[in-house]
Amino acid sequence: MCNRGRDCCGKRARAWARAALFPALLAPLMMVVMANRLLAQVRVEPPNWWVGMHNPSLQLMLHGSGIAGYRPEISGDGLTLEAWHPGASPNYLFLDLTVAPEGEGGWVSIALERSGFPKITLEYELKRRERPPEALRGFDSSDVVCLITPDRFANGDPGNDQVPGLREQGVNRKDDYARHGGDIRGIIEHLDYLSEMGFTALWPTPLLTNDMPRTSYHGYAITDFYAVDPRFGTLEEYRELSDKARARGLKLIMDQVVNHCGLYHWWMADLPFPDWIHYQDDFLAGRPFTVTNHRRTTNQDPYAARTDRELLNQGWFVPDMPDLNQSNPFMATYLIQNSIWWVETLQLGGIRQDTYPYPDKAFMARWARVLMEEYPEFTIVGEEWSYNPLLVGYWQHGAHNRDAYQSWLRSTMDFPLQKALVGALTAEEGWDAGLNILYEALANDFHYPRPLDLLFFGDNHDMDRLFTQLGESVGLTEMALAFILTAPRIPQIYYGTELLLQNSAKPGDHGLIRTDFPGGWSGDPKNGFDGRGLDPRERAMQAYVKKLLNFRKQSPALQMGGTLHFAPEDGVYVLARTYGDERVVLVLNKNEKPYALSLGRFEELGLEGKPVRNILNGETLVWEGRLPLNSPGAYIFATHKD
Amino acid sequence: MCNRGRDCCGKRARAWARAALFPALLAPLMMVVMANRLLAQVRVEPPNWWVGMHNPSLQLMLHGSGIAGYRPEISGDGLTLEAWHPGASPNYLFLDLTVAPEGEGGWVSIALERSGFPKITLEYELKRRERPPEALRGFDSSDVVCLITPDRFANGDPGNDQVPGLREQGVNRKDDYARHGGDIRGIIEHLDYLSEMGFTALWPTPLLTNDMPRTSYHGYAITDFYAVDPRFGTLEEYRELSDKARARGLKLIMDQVVNHCGLYHWWMADLPFPDWIHYQDDFLAGRPFTVTNHRRTTNQDPYAARTDRELLNQGWFVPDMPDLNQSNPFMATYLIQNSIWWVETLQLGGIRQDTYPYPDKAFMARWARVLMEEYPEFTIVGEEWSYNPLLVGYWQHGAHNRDAYQSWLRSTMDFPLQKALVGALTAEEGWDAGLNILYEALANDFHYPRPLDLLFFGDNHDMDRLFTQLGESVGLTEMALAFILTAPRIPQIYYGTELLLQNSAKPGDHGLIRTDFPGGWSGDPKNGFDGRGLDPRERAMQAYVKKLLNFRKQSPALQMGGTLHFAPEDGVYVLARTYGDERVVLVLNKNEKPYALSLGRFEELGLEGKPVRNILNGETLVWEGRLPLNSPGAYIFATHKD
Repeated sequence: MCNRGRDCCGKRARAWARAALFPALLAPLMMVVMANRLLAQVRVEPPNWWVGMHNPSLQLMLHGSGIAGYRPEISGDGLTLEAWHPGASPNYLFLDLTVAPEGEGGWVSIALERSGFPKITLEYELKRRERPPEALRGFDSSDVVCLITPDRFANGDPGNDQVPGLREQGVNRKDDYARHGGDIRGIIEHLDYLSEMGFTALWPTPLLTNDMPRTSYHGYAITDFYAVDPRFGTLEEYRELSDKARARGLKLIMDQVVNHCGLYHWWMADLPFPDWIHYQDDFLAGRPFTVTNHRRTTNQDPYAARTDRELLNQGWFVPDMPDLNQSNPFMATYLIQNSIWWVETLQLGGIRQDTYPYPDKAFMARWARVLMEEYPEFTIVGEEWSYNPLLVGYWQHGAHNRDAYQSWLRSTMDFPLQKALVGALTAEEGWDAGLNILYEALANDFHYPRPLDLLFFGDNHDMDRLFTQLGESVGLTEMALAFILTAPRIPQIYYGTELLLQNSAKPGDHGLIRTDFPGGWSGDPKNGFDGRGLDPRERAMQAYVKKLLNFRKQSPALQMGGTLHFAPEDGVYVLARTYGDERVVLVLNKNEKPYALSLGRFEELGLEGKPVRNILNGETLVWEGRLPLNSPGAYIFATHKD
Repeated sequence: MCNRGRDCCGKRARAWARAALFPALLAPLMMVVMANRLLAQVRVEPPNWWVGMHNPSLQLMLHGSGIAGYRPEISGDGLTLEAWHPGASPNYLFLDLTVAPEGEGGWVSIALERSGFPKITLEYELKRRERPPEALRGFDSSDVVCLITPDRFANGDPGNDQVPGLREQGVNRKDDYARHGGDIRGIIEHLDYLSEMGFTALWPTPLLTNDMPRTSYHGYAITDFYAVDPRFGTLEEYRELSDKARARGLKLIMDQVVNHCGLYHWWMADLPFPDWIHYQDDFLAGRPFTVTNHRRTTNQDPYAARTDRELLNQGWFVPDMPDLNQSNPFMATYLIQNSIWWVETLQLGGIRQDTYPYPDKAFMARWARVLMEEYPEFTIVGEEWSYNPLLVGYWQHGAHNRDAYQSWLRSTMDFPLQKALVGALTAEEGWDAGLNILYEALANDFHYPRPLDLLFFGDNHDMDRLFTQLGESVGLTEMALAFILTAPRIPQIYYGTELLLQNSAKPGDHGLIRTDFPGGWSGDPKNGFDGRGLDPRERAMQAYVKKLLNFRKQSPALQMGGTLHFAPEDGVYVLARTYGDERVVLVLNKNEKPYALSLGRFEELGLEGKPVRNILNGETLVWEGRLPLNSPGAYIFATHKD
């Protein structure tokens, strides 16, 4: 989510929310539960759990009318009741449980009794784990991630475009901030496309319910942390997406948000504790509450005022996103369990955590640590939108931070290199300008605990399309993509960049940045999936990206090789990756006129006199003398494989 | 020295140097030595040493016609000959000696014998140390450093303006790149001015001999590492400067250069080994040699090509500055001993090391380590001209570098904060612009081993005058100086900044940046030392700087206090320093219209309801409610002292 401190994501400031806006909506979306003598409506979260987890503790949140007055009891194996805690609201009861370390799982009965009231019995399922936790391998530098805005990718099921009862109704593809109808079925239907393009990981922006009155398409205002938005599909479809993606070698990354919820989250009508959200008193009294100051440096700044740091952490992200209070221990546990529930339920291949520097950083470290202890091969990437490598490096696990902070994050987002890439390509060459910006930015890798694990991209859902950033230059876009896919990083491509999607008419406009993928809707005049109607430039760029991705897919050098680069000279930058006998050399050339690159300077590459293949045009040449670079652009050479 | 990879410092590329240019100039400049039967002319360096040094080893370089063929012998106490090494040139002999750990010192005889030649006897002095090494305390954040370009500060001795026999003759104050006649005597004569202004440390740019044919005024092309340039004065005057400065509470910092020498250094006519300088073969053959690529990131870059790193380290800084080869062990020892000799001879209060990232970094660490072992309370500041805090932080001792490099440098130069300061003052205010640039730059202090030890400045001898950088705005210059003198740093002010010296007519012109200090020459129509002829703006700025410096001089909070700052809002930035009961608050206000600063947000300062003194106008007010800021500028408030 865009966290630049401006009004963004199409969510504009609205009238102050009032608790009175909310009807008592206790209708359960996830579970229907049977009571003994009458049908009681009790929400239980997490809706199920598993035996054999690393952490045997489980805390259930029960929500139902007057439930705080009930006394719980558990019969049967598998679950032991350790303690229970009524909420400050009479409608919440929290159960501290221990799950048996082994066993077949199954259903356990939780009885709730209260003098003078009918007894309630909840049946709670403990499932068996499907795969050992080590099998949930997170994405890494052997992958290329495709980032998708699901509402704008493909409308696989027009039947779910309109869902009665939700606050925002209607689809309108002419309105950049309205729902367009894209859904999980649309992604599933095009997994072959994504796989054949050469992607190996998929990051859809959030798919959980955003029952908000407007601009609900973006997904970052979650109103139920356990429910798939019905306009995107069902939990079963989300799981189908994960399974079918995995079957094609695509890891599924879930976009999670623990910093805030949507203003119409169900619990906003009945908050369990007085400190469930920040600025709760103001919210309940209908007073104006406070938004964050976005001063993210206060997380690291040794001189930061306490008030500034608190406002960063506690202020609401925007007026329709209440800030969750992770220092409430029930909230903390709720969020951690929710994350684990989704990893285990969907058998995920990674988490992308939104607005990473906004919640309390000690909580974030705990959250990530618990996940990594549960899934030691997993990957979490946190979003810190900063162009300062010091901040990006601070958040990567293994950082040598002077305050000893350890984030437990394997990956952070390389905004600094993104900015350097675009700056390098668009600036005039000069001693400390042009390609040297990129060369020097990559040199900063000495600072990172593990540069290979940084997520690197040319654009994403919050910034101008790469093609727009590069002034709609096809040549520069090719160079950018060649660098992104050659650099020692986890590359990420935003859907449709391969078709030169742009937002040049309205730079900075989030709705337009998240343009519909051509062919995702029946009747689209252009179709990126099968190529119909694409113009020659789009077709060529798609083929170019496909070639690069598929080359990378089988290239250990690009996936995990060592890196060697040479200081740019005369508008030419040479970077090489090496693994074993394989060497891949990227040459970025900004000379408009034919240029002959003298190869003597690159003797360290060990290629002198050897045949190399230009992987873009398939031609083979001998690496010696001068390399003719007849036009500006990217050249990629690879040693022959036996 | 400007190390930005451009032609700079007024030194323009010249015809390639040739060894043939040099007459055999073996005339000793430092020592006249008696031989037994004939007067032999032998240069001995270091020209003396001391008993009781931490490191008892000493290597003498003897230079004289045919001396490599002599066999040395030592008689007397105090010095033991361990080994000797002839140079590759027949005119060099290196003696490895051990100095007795204790004793009175005195003269030791070194006999040199060669069959068929007269015996030569050198008398070598071992001095007693004047003060314990711990007494040589380096500059720190309790100091404010005044940087002076000696040729341009004051001409105390017109008698040394012209020195026969030197290559560059004449003074011409109308030529920005000629000698103007300033000298050590001129500094000595104005120590009272510097001290009364409130400075406590003095950094003159190099004073050693630069016997170069042109632009020798800047001092960075040293042609004799043991000689004071006679146009600046004598060794005795240099020592007088140190003593008289120290007597006034001013520490003397020496500007040293181990990366290169001047092309007309005496040894260029007779190089002792084939690898004494880099690109020596090309130099000797009269071929074009190679200049450095200035790619300083190769020092840290894990991916840097060996060729790029070597070129950084080995290329000549500019064509008239041969690059010294510190990997020659005799050269390494020569440079280390030379530095120690000057510290001990002048009883220095610090070293500023030029072009720090250019020599081999392992050597630089050894050089600094040996100095710090000799003088544990000393301070060395290295010049890395980079706006990247990662690089600046890398060089400060105690850095958590992933390659485990330790520089042994207590201080590095805070170019990043300098750039942020000017950027913050000159940019329009905005969420991530204006004063926020400065606020966020200071937040990067979480990265540095010891931010208080960074040298911080608004300008120096290589960059536009602060007043010019700030568009000749007096108000912005006041704000900049207030911040520089309030920040948790070692502040450095360039001479004449207090008089609004500027180079606006020719931005970037080094000769003009190093403008003559008004009043430094007899007959100057304006005199900054006694105030004659200053215009009201100059007079006011001088008084302003004097007030700030003298306030800081007695303020433990500014010298070593803790720091607390608040995110800028509405064009106002508040920063506080605290030590014990003393609290100093800087308010930078960019509002052109009167602004009332609500103090409620600054409750952490603990000043509510307390009297504070505006140290700039002397008024006292009570810190409560709203603070009227009636004009843009800097406001500094301090708690009352009992």
